[in-house]
Amino acid sequence: MLRLDTRFLKDFPEVLKAHGTALLGAQETLLAKRKDPGAMLGWMDLPEDTETLREVRRFREANPWVEDFVLLGIGGSALGPKALEAAFNGSGVRFHYVDHVEPEPVLKLLRTLDPRKTLVNAVSKSGATAETLAALLVFLDWLKRERGQEWRRHLVLTTDPKRGALRALAEREGLRAFAIPENVGGRFSVLSPVGLLPLAFAGADLEALLMGARKANEVALAPLEQNLSLQTTLLHHLHRHLPVTVFMVYSERLKYLPAWFVQLHDESLGKRDREGKRVGTTAVPALGPADQHAQVQLFREGPLDKLIQLVVPERPTEDLPLPEVAGLEEEAGYLFGKGLFRLLSAEAEATYRALAEAGQRVYTLYLSEVSPYAVGWLLQHLMWQTAYLGELWGVNAFDQPGVELGKRLTLALLGRPGYEGDGSVEISS
Amino acid sequence: MLRLDTRFLKDFPEVLKAHGTALLGAQETLLAKRKDPGAMLGWMDLPEDTETLREVRRFREANPWVEDFVLLGIGGSALGPKALEAAFNGSGVRFHYVDHVEPEPVLKLLRTLDPRKTLVNAVSKSGATAETLAALLVFLDWLKRERGQEWRRHLVLTTDPKRGALRALAEREGLRAFAIPENVGGRFSVLSPVGLLPLAFAGADLEALLMGARKANEVALAPLEQNLSLQTTLLHHLHRHLPVTVFMVYSERLKYLPAWFVQLHDESLGKRDREGKRVGTTAVPALGPADQHAQVQLFREGPLDKLIQLVVPERPTEDLPLPEVAGLEEEAGYLFGKGLFRLLSAEAEATYRALAEAGQRVYTLYLSEVSPYAVGWLLQHLMWQTAYLGELWGVNAFDQPGVELGKRLTLALLGRPGYEGDGSVEISS
Repeated sequence: MLRLDTRFLKDFPEVLKAHGTALLGAQETLLAKRKDPGAMLGWMDLPEDTETLREVRRFREANPWVEDFVLLGIGGSALGPKALEAAFNGSGVRFHYVDHVEPEPVLKLLRTLDPRKTLVNAVSKSGATAETLAALLVFLDWLKRERGQEWRRHLVLTTDPKRGALRALAEREGLRAFAIPENVGGRFSVLSPVGLLPLAFAGADLEALLMGARKANEVALAPLEQNLSLQTTLLHHLHRHLPVTVFMVYSERLKYLPAWFVQLHDESLGKRDREGKRVGTTAVPALGPADQHAQVQLFREGPLDKLIQLVVPERPTEDLPLPEVAGLEEEAGYLFGKGLFRLLSAEAEATYRALAEAGQRVYTLYLSEVSPYAVGWLLQHLMWQTAYLGELWGVNAFDQPGVELGKRLTLALLGRPGYEGDGSVEISS
Repeated sequence: MLRLDTRFLKDFPEVLKAHGTALLGAQETLLAKRKDPGAMLGWMDLPEDTETLREVRRFREANPWVEDFVLLGIGGSALGPKALEAAFNGSGVRFHYVDHVEPEPVLKLLRTLDPRKTLVNAVSKSGATAETLAALLVFLDWLKRERGQEWRRHLVLTTDPKRGALRALAEREGLRAFAIPENVGGRFSVLSPVGLLPLAFAGADLEALLMGARKANEVALAPLEQNLSLQTTLLHHLHRHLPVTVFMVYSERLKYLPAWFVQLHDESLGKRDREGKRVGTTAVPALGPADQHAQVQLFREGPLDKLIQLVVPERPTEDLPLPEVAGLEEEAGYLFGKGLFRLLSAEAEATYRALAEAGQRVYTLYLSEVSPYAVGWLLQHLMWQTAYLGELWGVNAFDQPGVELGKRLTLALLGRPGYEGDGSVEISS
């Protein structure tokens, strides 16, 4: 379960009441678009999709030979699966993410993989992502060379249900291909086959994950006083003048979650509003307690230009009692006999207080524990928060027009026919 | 080698000349403190320390049995080694970083390690770091249980040459302990045994690394026109009104480098200046091309509140030609036959132009290649930049007073004698 703590933000209950109309208005506008496929709100329905869950499970069971899972995908195709797999991998299947185009690590990976035990999953909604296509060329060629006629068993695609180069490849070659619903965008796709397929191979509890997300849906539509998503939306809305939004997670298992949030927040909300004004805040990823030794100095004594959200588990799934070691009584005696989790909790609580004392705006989201249920809830909650903020800030949270120029320039530099004119840009300095 | 590109920052050569006096003044003030041990400028001398290099090498050669290297350390004790080991591990020794206090991943690690093949390296300058001591209790106990009398062979310490609990433990038990020079702080310690010892086990070319750092020292003291460090210092100084400093690296092998930079920059410069004013900018880590699919939308269309530095390799150490795959001509034909590195280069160049076109302030540091020499140069260059900025901004770049309250509150919450009064804080809202 998720619990919001705003103890250092005075008068929040009153402020919430005062903004009730605006928040419920944003909710209403968002939900009115729910049936419009172009509104890209399919992520709301993913937690109910038990049919896809069954398919993914059947595919996993039909392929018990997999020991290495190679995900070819970038951005929304990789950040969600990576965050959840790192947290919940219980199967021992090794995961490798080719979410880059640096040759040396790809070569190193190819030299260590056993092709007979490797499943390659190429993931791209559009089927046109340059990085993913480049990686696919390399791995397709490798599989054909190493596995001959058997190569098709080792490749599974996740892409648009109808369009694009990956869908066409699947149909031509008779490859298994899972569908990303048309009305689900990359950064909102973690509970589609983009995330579910790798997580099935990781042995994660997918039912609990989806159950948590369904709970988030319920809460996001609850009355204001119980509506966690509208409440955190308001916190971000009230602090939109602060340029930096810190997302600091107190869990090593969730170490890749901040990167997922950064994409969700930055790419959804960092854009021009209807008047052409530049809006958005810059999300900064942080991990506790490591960043107490890296970023907290700045958070405490640097500019008061941040809204800081801590994500803190309330109990361990398994604790580790700290042993007494003779000779270390003086420096470490205060730790003897305590559970390691108690140190984690104390550090999170101390940091929360210290940041508030410094004058930074800070709140905490408590996760009951780092479980698929609680994390599924958290992910879906953050998607609701992002969608609500899009309504309040007057931006379309589901497009990314700002990345088009970079894509065109890349293709021009690579000499792709039709892009010749895009190689140079006008810089107004 | 390192090369600075400021093509989108008009008139930079003239601006550099105009600020020459201020920059050389900062340099002079900094260097005047070089002989003062309290000034913590020992990092300048580390690249010359061939004696430590020999010791580290001898220790590595005396322990050829190591297959798993477990580093217990947090913040500056982990970020540098992790960044370099990920880039240059050629030995196949597996590295594990216990830079957190979450019980479950520690338990998982203990269950998979073979104690006979494991070397544990506890790293803490002060010997009082709570997270590192907690981890040490766990691993000491484990080694004694698993290895009996042999446990001492499996533990090596890296700490202050004289003081602290780790130094005392080493002396009492006759453990091997490497010294972090007294005048070297955690975030400036990567070229001390903090980094060199793990990197020796990773099989990295330590001589090339130090040679690159020596080159950085030479350049940081060169005349202004050749002085890369004073030049990038000026870029950051001129843009200090922008709250966000993006550090975006186009190399998967250097994926942990941004986190190292974030600590160096934020913890050194995010503090109160002599007048008590809050200074510093917030460093944001980014990786190319993955963040083109995550953060670049915000960088292009969101607020113009950023200085963006790209770090881009100019050539691969080994390239991977993209094969032609029948059936993918239409979508991927433009990639056929090209080296994968060419895609990386085109994306970096396209992003550079697209960010400038959007009106963001952006410059590029080119690395000749991702080699120990070039990366050693880069790290030491960034330390010079940070030290110079400390002088210009009127802060001590080598302390971290802002983290003390959090530490005291943690100890109070854990009931350590002597800290009882610190448990509650006054929040002025």
